Amino acid sequence: MKKAIVLLSGGLDSATVLAIARRRGHECYALSFRYGQRHTIELAAARRLARNLGAKEHKVARIDLRLFGGSALTDNIAVPKGNALKSLGRKIPITYVPARNTIFLSLALAWAEVIGATDIFIGVNALDYSGYPDCRPEFIRAFERLANCATRLGAEARRRFKIHAPLQRMTKAQIIQTGLKLGVDYALTTSCYDPGPRGRPCGKCDACRLRARGFAEIGQRDPALRKK
Amino acid sequence: MKKAIVLLSGGLDSATVLAIARRRGHECYALSFRYGQRHTIELAAARRLARNLGAKEHKVARIDLRLFGGSALTDNIAVPKGNALKSLGRKIPITYVPARNTIFLSLALAWAEVIGATDIFIGVNALDYSGYPDCRPEFIRAFERLANCATRLGAEARRRFKIHAPLQRMTKAQIIQTGLKLGVDYALTTSCYDPGPRGRPCGKCDACRLRARGFAEIGQRDPALRKK
Repeated sequence: MKKAIVLLSGGLDSATVLAIARRRGHECYALSFRYGQRHTIELAAARRLARNLGAKEHKVARIDLRLFGGSALTDNIAVPKGNALKSLGRKIPITYVPARNTIFLSLALAWAEVIGATDIFIGVNALDYSGYPDCRPEFIRAFERLANCATRLGAEARRRFKIHAPLQRMTKAQIIQTGLKLGVDYALTTSCYDPGPRGRPCGKCDACRLRARGFAEIGQRDPALRKK
Repeated sequence: MKKAIVLLSGGLDSATVLAIARRRGHECYALSFRYGQRHTIELAAARRLARNLGAKEHKVARIDLRLFGGSALTDNIAVPKGNALKSLGRKIPITYVPARNTIFLSLALAWAEVIGATDIFIGVNALDYSGYPDCRPEFIRAFERLANCATRLGAEARRRFKIHAPLQRMTKAQIIQTGLKLGVDYALTTSCYDPGPRGRPCGKCDACRLRARGFAEIGQRDPALRKK
């Protein structure tokens, strides 16, 4: 089986990506980050998902992005609620974490090199992408080019890295449908930017609204909203 | 003054780069890493150099590269001694840390975005570069392209990032001469991959040999070798 690194946040998208990578026959090495996010409930979700979806190994890397600040997800800035969805795609929201996907992919690249993998999976999405620059196809292509000249595998062994972003052109509804077909248990996932006690989603942030819209479009109830 | 991020390891090269960035009129934000290196003496050197060379601010980011392993500098692999210099440029040595400069530049990019800087300085060197793929000019160019599409500054504000690698085509001797002209106190720097008690350089690893050759070529005594 061909090894692959899969970035796993504990959210709906990356859970689906892990299921896709497994279905494509990869032996999956799941990588999560403790990056100073205000809530770490998603790391518990990532652990459950890695086990549930058959990852070969799961690592959690620490990087303190609070050192730099500059985002509602790592700094003392309020997460926007209510009318956030309206502005989707128009402006980069405050929940953007500077250079986050660049940093995450860099660390994935390090692990990939150590285990001899050239496939890296990431759950970015260009349609419902919330306006983050580092979720766009041109970003993914630029990182691929970088990986090929940044590493021993690329420079010496002439192996080509592939950054897989299988959700890139899917709507949230299509992502959910894909995952359901592959047996993803979305009750194990968490998407909210600002969860309450026992991880209850706020229902109002961008992430909650995108998720709710996705389930609504396919006429399904979000299993994570079942009373716990 | 235009702000710039300067990667500062505590070694001879990055000290020279900081002096160059200051001379070019930048307000310098020095960034060092505690990345699981076996010796942290270089962080003490970085702190002294940041102060001594007039950095506006100095931050140390933690990233545990030992999580992935795969290098003599972060893993339980012996640092090669003796005949290492002979193979320079032929094969990537075991002291290569997978994706290290990609990770370092990614974190520099995050800080740059937060403070609104688009200039990042790094002390990589293509001549005496010890065979690391992520020290080559094509790597630097690839990272620049990535930075421009990975960030809010690049994607939304249309500002262009510049990764400055002023040492890229210099020999170690030329680097030292440049630094001496700019007033760098090389007694404050540390280069050894495997220092002994009180930070005494081993004199035998690649880094020690390159440094010794540089000072020898300009007929100077390395001030860091003075008896402490």
